[in-house]
Amino acid sequence: MSAPKKVVLAYSGGLDTSIILKWLQTEYGCEVVTFTADLGQGEELEPARKKAELLGIKPENIYIEDVREEFVRDFVFPMFRANAVYEGLYLLGTSIARPLISKRLVEIAEEVGADAIAHGATGKGNDQVRFELSAAALNPDVKCIAPWREWDLSSRTKLLEFAEQNQIPIAKDKRGEAPFSVDANLLHTSSEGKVLEDPAVMAPDYVFQRTVVPEDAPNEPEFIEITFEKGDAVAINGEAMSPATILTRLNELGGKHGCGRLDFVENRFVGMKSRGIYETPGGTVLLEAHRGIEQITLDSGAGHLKDSLMPRYAELIYNGFWFSPEREMLQAAIDKSQELVSGTVRLKLYKGSATCVGRWSDASLYSEAHVTFEDDAGAYDQKDAAGFIQLNALRLRLLAARKRRLGS
Amino acid sequence: MSAPKKVVLAYSGGLDTSIILKWLQTEYGCEVVTFTADLGQGEELEPARKKAELLGIKPENIYIEDVREEFVRDFVFPMFRANAVYEGLYLLGTSIARPLISKRLVEIAEEVGADAIAHGATGKGNDQVRFELSAAALNPDVKCIAPWREWDLSSRTKLLEFAEQNQIPIAKDKRGEAPFSVDANLLHTSSEGKVLEDPAVMAPDYVFQRTVVPEDAPNEPEFIEITFEKGDAVAINGEAMSPATILTRLNELGGKHGCGRLDFVENRFVGMKSRGIYETPGGTVLLEAHRGIEQITLDSGAGHLKDSLMPRYAELIYNGFWFSPEREMLQAAIDKSQELVSGTVRLKLYKGSATCVGRWSDASLYSEAHVTFEDDAGAYDQKDAAGFIQLNALRLRLLAARKRRLGS
Amino acid sequence: MSAPKKVVLAYSGGLDTSIILKWLQTEYGCEVVTFTADLGQGEELEPARKKAELLGIKPENIYIEDVREEFVRDFVFPMFRANAVYEGLYLLGTSIARPLISKRLVEIAEEVGADAIAHGATGKGNDQVRFELSAAALNPDVKCIAPWREWDLSSRTKLLEFAEQNQIPIAKDKRGEAPFSVDANLLHTSSEGKVLEDPAVMAPDYVFQRTVVPEDAPNEPEFIEITFEKGDAVAINGEAMSPATILTRLNELGGKHGCGRLDFVENRFVGMKSRGIYETPGGTVLLEAHRGIEQITLDSGAGHLKDSLMPRYAELIYNGFWFSPEREMLQAAIDKSQELVSGTVRLKLYKGSATCVGRWSDASLYSEAHVTFEDDAGAYDQKDAAGFIQLNALRLRLLAARKRRLGS
Amino acid sequence: MSAPKKVVLAYSGGLDTSIILKWLQTEYGCEVVTFTADLGQGEELEPARKKAELLGIKPENIYIEDVREEFVRDFVFPMFRANAVYEGLYLLGTSIARPLISKRLVEIAEEVGADAIAHGATGKGNDQVRFELSAAALNPDVKCIAPWREWDLSSRTKLLEFAEQNQIPIAKDKRGEAPFSVDANLLHTSSEGKVLEDPAVMAPDYVFQRTVVPEDAPNEPEFIEITFEKGDAVAINGEAMSPATILTRLNELGGKHGCGRLDFVENRFVGMKSRGIYETPGGTVLLEAHRGIEQITLDSGAGHLKDSLMPRYAELIYNGFWFSPEREMLQAAIDKSQELVSGTVRLKLYKGSATCVGRWSDASLYSEAHVTFEDDAGAYDQKDAAGFIQLNALRLRLLAARKRRLGS
Repeated sequence: MSAPKKVVLAYSGGLDTSIILKWLQTEYGCEVVTFTADLGQGEELEPARKKAELLGIKPENIYIEDVREEFVRDFVFPMFRANAVYEGLYLLGTSIARPLISKRLVEIAEEVGADAIAHGATGKGNDQVRFELSAAALNPDVKCIAPWREWDLSSRTKLLEFAEQNQIPIAKDKRGEAPFSVDANLLHTSSEGKVLEDPAVMAPDYVFQRTVVPEDAPNEPEFIEITFEKGDAVAINGEAMSPATILTRLNELGGKHGCGRLDFVENRFVGMKSRGIYETPGGTVLLEAHRGIEQITLDSGAGHLKDSLMPRYAELIYNGFWFSPEREMLQAAIDKSQELVSGTVRLKLYKGSATCVGRWSDASLYSEAHVTFEDDAGAYDQKDAAGFIQLNALRLRLLAARKRRLGS
Repeated sequence: MSAPKKVVLAYSGGLDTSIILKWLQTEYGCEVVTFTADLGQGEELEPARKKAELLGIKPENIYIEDVREEFVRDFVFPMFRANAVYEGLYLLGTSIARPLISKRLVEIAEEVGADAIAHGATGKGNDQVRFELSAAALNPDVKCIAPWREWDLSSRTKLLEFAEQNQIPIAKDKRGEAPFSVDANLLHTSSEGKVLEDPAVMAPDYVFQRTVVPEDAPNEPEFIEITFEKGDAVAINGEAMSPATILTRLNELGGKHGCGRLDFVENRFVGMKSRGIYETPGGTVLLEAHRGIEQITLDSGAGHLKDSLMPRYAELIYNGFWFSPEREMLQAAIDKSQELVSGTVRLKLYKGSATCVGRWSDASLYSEAHVTFEDDAGAYDQKDAAGFIQLNALRLRLLAARKRRLGS
Repeated sequence: MSAPKKVVLAYSGGLDTSIILKWLQTEYGCEVVTFTADLGQGEELEPARKKAELLGIKPENIYIEDVREEFVRDFVFPMFRANAVYEGLYLLGTSIARPLISKRLVEIAEEVGADAIAHGATGKGNDQVRFELSAAALNPDVKCIAPWREWDLSSRTKLLEFAEQNQIPIAKDKRGEAPFSVDANLLHTSSEGKVLEDPAVMAPDYVFQRTVVPEDAPNEPEFIEITFEKGDAVAINGEAMSPATILTRLNELGGKHGCGRLDFVENRFVGMKSRGIYETPGGTVLLEAHRGIEQITLDSGAGHLKDSLMPRYAELIYNGFWFSPEREMLQAAIDKSQELVSGTVRLKLYKGSATCVGRWSDASLYSEAHVTFEDDAGAYDQKDAAGFIQLNALRLRLLAARKRRLGS
Repeated sequence: MSAPKKVVLAYSGGLDTSIILKWLQTEYGCEVVTFTADLGQGEELEPARKKAELLGIKPENIYIEDVREEFVRDFVFPMFRANAVYEGLYLLGTSIARPLISKRLVEIAEEVGADAIAHGATGKGNDQVRFELSAAALNPDVKCIAPWREWDLSSRTKLLEFAEQNQIPIAKDKRGEAPFSVDANLLHTSSEGKVLEDPAVMAPDYVFQRTVVPEDAPNEPEFIEITFEKGDAVAINGEAMSPATILTRLNELGGKHGCGRLDFVENRFVGMKSRGIYETPGGTVLLEAHRGIEQITLDSGAGHLKDSLMPRYAELIYNGFWFSPEREMLQAAIDKSQELVSGTVRLKLYKGSATCVGRWSDASLYSEAHVTFEDDAGAYDQKDAAGFIQLNALRLRLLAARKRRLGS
């Protein structure tokens, strides 16, 4: 790979990506363009502009964007249509943000004529894969630079030395080692590493950032209503909102009631197990609500197919294959199923739980006329069940007869 | 189908199955053998013996058995090895009990020379299917009699009339209609029908039978440890117990903390949606614990395969195909995966939630040496990730190049 | 079910459906509307009109339609996009025709104000299921009448008696029993029953109707080229043709070379095994060609997902669920994959075989630059493979280390 | 990776692996142990011993073994129980041989105290992955050396120079470049590269090595019978034979009749498409036969599950994950299904085709009593089908009613 001439860097404004910025300039002598996205991580973005300027980035090379609506509308919501959970429990909060960042990195690279993009993910994790697979799928020629895989700044000491040598300002609280590593966006906060590395040991309270411990949540449950159209949440308690506004509001509600904490050991795509603490307050509420509305509006054939496709869909997102033909195929199937997943769900939030306690819809498939224990006025002829069972049993009966015949 | 001469009836001792008993005698003039099983439903069994005798059943034709250990060991635990949930949420508490009852009905029929079995499930539900498919798979020749599909006792009034005409004692509280219908066993209690039929309306408190409402659960969390061997729970807080004892103890713990309540609209095999309230306190705790121990002891390849097979496995159990070749094939695959799923999980029970907060095992695949943010002493070469990504990206890059080439 | 007043009957003009026509008139006293479709079964349709008139059907109640183009375009081709085969071998020739017939029956019923449809399929087969599930999915209120399940004309003798009593003309060759039963359309001919009922015995030559025995096929191979656009065949040997014309032409080519014969024992949806002889000359050639063009134009991720979905898709069609949400979901996924499945395939037809011997496309993903044994000018860095393998091996290595550690 | 001290090399005796042998000695100064396996590739093995000795390998370091029986019994047959085909067509002939070679390499390494194994697969192909994943799964510490990824002998000229400089004898016909690359074992022969690299161009006749072109096959069909026990072939025409003998005999029969030729473009695990010519005469016959016996002895539930698992199973083998937990899980499921897959199949071999024309078994599930068009003496009540269809249709009818209600 020839040396890059102009690089678009995913830049947070923090110490690590500032070091990367400088390292790119010194290692490759290349022009650096910074991209800082507001994905709802809860940090001011303007300081990133100042830091980039301080590090010598030309103003026209500084991109700062609020992508929260795009994030929720085009990435989070499509994923929630699938009820995607990875390995039974993880709501994919980090995984789903990476493709969007890559998409903008590649687009900016094409706009400014850069030949490479760069990111601050390490060589041990999933994020490097997600960034780079997304980039490859969007532009076959763009180079991806992952300084953590290349440089020899392998210890905290070396990093700080490099920062000092290069006049990168170091906040006082960054002098010592962080007790764990954090990623955040509008969907979730993840914490990993250091004090969390022993999966036998309970995560300390101070790790959690956006949910109260259930013990400190209100002593009274709160009931809310979420309205869906075509599988996407469109209103809370009857008030229509934009996608990002809905997720923001659900985060507040879920966080206040201690919902969506997860202590999890997962299998990384790169082959090792890792332990993470995830907080997905709004997403946890949303998943429960979506399942609730599907219960009455989704046909069983469609629902069972969705359930069987979901693990693969979630794995694709986790592994970084958002922009792959197979994810798009699955999305086409899933979206097809959501055309009438519309209606309203009532939820109870209390001390760490979000539970569906009611759901209704004009598009409901629930037929009280059929299911009732009372007289159903002929909606359903119970005698049909005899034939239904008889034919479903036929092959089992033939198997049983064979067993007896063969004495096996 | 010729008229049965001798029938083994799944007999609870309650009003409905007593009516069935009498109806079989009068309708078919056949000899009735009763089978009453203790599946942990929490009712005394000896009264069933007295009632059967009162209805003219010969003592040698009355079978009363405690099958709790068999139930948990051979049905519940194998199912939990799969982390089976139906339609994302239901732990299959009723479904998993039916095959065992059928198995004993068929075995007793063979012992006593009966040519038919009978059950009290209606023609609208899943249980008739589960009873009869299981029976067909175990004995190709046995007849199944489902009085609810045959008789004309289609209203409560007619049923009570029949009871009175036939000297069947009617408890006072059975005179009026029950406000909902209940099934229970050691794994769960389900409630359906009547006041629960509108899925928009929250279930009233009095429906719940074995879990406290989370608001009334203790204000302090309780921490417990569950130990697994080969995928099955074998001890709680270090104390070894039999399968049924473990589930009983977990029910107490879970019920006390309000765990395992589910308000659910599901798709019945017979084609309609129905709403149920399920309480699975011990099972909910057990599932969380099992997932926790799998997190460190199960390989990702095995785990992802399990996840993708699970929906089909759960559907088979729900639909009544426990004794089918395909369920046995899936079980073989699942059991193969559990050979080293051994170790201990620490859980926090609090106000309706059971959450894994730690797990450890001699068979752990978690490698702190690999995952650490610290120096890993060469366990993992970050440069390998570049090649890994490069080859995973190759096809995406070829796709992107084609897109550009074709201008599509 | 109340008696039908006006019934649309799938009417072939043959003896059996003529008897059904009469039986409907006499049994229900209802008005009968006949629908006769040209699906490419190779029979004249006008005789059906005359017979219907003879049996007293009013001219405005006689529908005769050529639906061959619709059949191939909207049913056969979408199915072939999926490479659908049932139980490894069967190309679903009968299954795929039923939904179209039901669709027209239901549409005509709505046009003429009929309250029921009727078909001539027996109660043992799959076709009754396919007809009736399709009808239910298209009109929830339409009744389905299956005389074979209702009447007592259970022997050939009784049928002929009924025909004679009702002045239904009986062709001389119908006096005796047919040696086997036949269904045909543009995609295939199936033969079942009677002389074919012992699956150990080779089917006699006279069973085959539209393919020569390979021994009698030309001694010289024939090479043809099929061009695809978006997964559908659009031209043969460079000549653009309509869907039905293409399939007709492929039938001629395949039939001449003895392609597409299948002796098969399959599992019917109703629970029994049956043996059929299928001839699908054009479809066999088409499947081989479609696989050939996919080989160079379909990405592996998309292709492997398709392969894993196919058995379920095929089963849905076989079982009669063409008009189900889950089939439509799968179709959406499959169609998504076919957007660039365009190009040309060269096939060799010879003595019963159709084999792809070459394929090319502007949309090819095959990269000689990457795959070549020669110098690849840096397209692929072999060293990347080391990292790729290393990370794929990591979990296997951790498993092996555990095995050694535990001595298991 | 520290330099290896003692290496077990997969040694064919050919020029390429002789060069590798020498290169290992010179590059690493390590002791080399050679392993030459008779997998049925059809070459003498003793010349390999002489060449190894000539290159300075100590006699006790030369391992030559006939592993044909193990190959067929423990690898080929288990795979055929699954009816495994990769991407619809490829019988995995190369893929299935690699794990066995790796297994012996690792075992020998442990016996002789070697710290590494080496193979002659290039960095572009699948075989390197298969060798190395298998080794990692069997011994977590063994190193894998792939000289083709390391050295700079990147052209034919350089290779020959190296050979000459190192006194490696070069057969005259190896002076020029081979027109394509070949791999062979008892299951198949594959040919790739060079003249085959353009997938549009038909493979020349001289590429094929073990099958006659169908045009040259006998003009008379040949009928054979294959007997199975538990899914494995155990006899041909009534004569019991060992696994390897059966496959050898089927190769002769299939090859003589031109069966099992495949011109194929496949997706390699490393991300590129490649074109191969495969000859699998015996395997093609065996697959057809196995499907035939399954048709009458395998239940539909088991069969459909098998069909849906097969693509994943085949992909695992193709990608090199034979020794993975998930392949073993799938094998457990598949083997469970084969317990009564016993009986005999009659096949017709003719001009490139192997087709099943009859099958019989004591364990047959085919019930003429049920399927017959004749009077079935009450085995099957056609009226049951009405209820069966009614309940299968219920959800479709509810969907159709919703559609009408919503006017959508």
